[in-house]
Amino acid sequence: MDSAVALGEARAAGFAAYALTVRYGQRHACELEAARRVARALGAVEQRELALDLGPLAESALTGSGEVPKGRDESELAAQGVPATYVPARNTVLLALALAWAETLGARDLYLGVNAVDYSGYPDCRPEFLRAFEDLAALATAAGTERGARFRVHAPLVALTKKEIVLRAESLGVDLGLTHSCYDPLERAGRWLACGSCDACSLRLKGFREAGRVDPVAYARALEPASGSRRVP
Amino acid sequence: MDSAVALGEARAAGFAAYALTVRYGQRHACELEAARRVARALGAVEQRELALDLGPLAESALTGSGEVPKGRDESELAAQGVPATYVPARNTVLLALALAWAETLGARDLYLGVNAVDYSGYPDCRPEFLRAFEDLAALATAAGTERGARFRVHAPLVALTKKEIVLRAESLGVDLGLTHSCYDPLERAGRWLACGSCDACSLRLKGFREAGRVDPVAYARALEPASGSRRVP
Repeated sequence: MDSAVALGEARAAGFAAYALTVRYGQRHACELEAARRVARALGAVEQRELALDLGPLAESALTGSGEVPKGRDESELAAQGVPATYVPARNTVLLALALAWAETLGARDLYLGVNAVDYSGYPDCRPEFLRAFEDLAALATAAGTERGARFRVHAPLVALTKKEIVLRAESLGVDLGLTHSCYDPLERAGRWLACGSCDACSLRLKGFREAGRVDPVAYARALEPASGSRRVP
Repeated sequence: MDSAVALGEARAAGFAAYALTVRYGQRHACELEAARRVARALGAVEQRELALDLGPLAESALTGSGEVPKGRDESELAAQGVPATYVPARNTVLLALALAWAETLGARDLYLGVNAVDYSGYPDCRPEFLRAFEDLAALATAAGTERGARFRVHAPLVALTKKEIVLRAESLGVDLGLTHSCYDPLERAGRWLACGSCDACSLRLKGFREAGRVDPVAYARALEPASGSRRVP
């Protein structure tokens, strides 16, 4: 969802977009299918998929056999510190790969869908991390040594809540029905269903609820109505 | 050769070593065999090999079908600027992967075999690049946010010439016969032979010559004697 809206922002800003998707050993491989759908829908010039199994290097609930936390409420999420789903140095690796492709393409602008909600727990979603990466990119590349060719890391969602991201998607014309957020999806009859209770689902559903919108993706179980009252069985 | 001596320095400094080798699409895959030999000989606790095909993202004579330059002399090498064998953002990607593994292991010290010769052409071998990566690592990781846990990037060869590296290997007890440098090796009867004329071979041979030592690795063609005078056929 965040990557899709970041891509929408890049397109709205007039950029020709080259979308990079990394198969980094995440268990929710259906996000790769979603990435292809989104890149196509938003008119990316090209979408490339790169296989890089981070599993052996970086232990995390997202890549290993660790348990994906379920059913936690907002205050538990806020109090957790660095989440179990943190993948060591993930955004550093992703940005490094994007930088390699950008230098090859002659591009100078990198877009990343990190946001304010991630900010509370993931160290590599903070604005100061993104600025440090720009400083690094200027020194790391042949292109960076050219005058006026400084790389820029754009994180248009960094200060937005999930609610604001839902509304931003709407005004940009990004169809969030094409996206996938769930950390622990279920396949049923060839179709991926979000679990509705992992942290990613919780934050996503909260965003839609607060924006007064209905999430168009399919969930594995019937969800509570937006009012928060219990369903009568 | 440089990585081997860097590993030797890490071991001499008392570190337990975890060696990371990346199969990044380089055509000289025999450097991967050399990495295994060197890690074993120098008593690394573990050596891991990670497959990451940078080819589709980063065009370079080392990963693509570009011509590996041959037979260039020292002044041509010095005047070339960024070499054709530069792989866009390569050291940024390598350090990012090393950082992921280091954070998982609880390690704080990263060793990299970049040196003064590379320094003349490769932007991502400069000390200021390495310092910028340390700044980034402090912000990029959960570990970096802990007090006193700053990551350090060690580049013990950064100020050394190839001659000094050859002599340093000798005093550290690093067998350079186990290493591989050639960008364009030949396989003959199941054995890899260095070409003797690519930039990597030229720099390596110059280092041995200036150190007054004989390179123990096998070359594909008879080489000029160390004195520089022509052989009588």
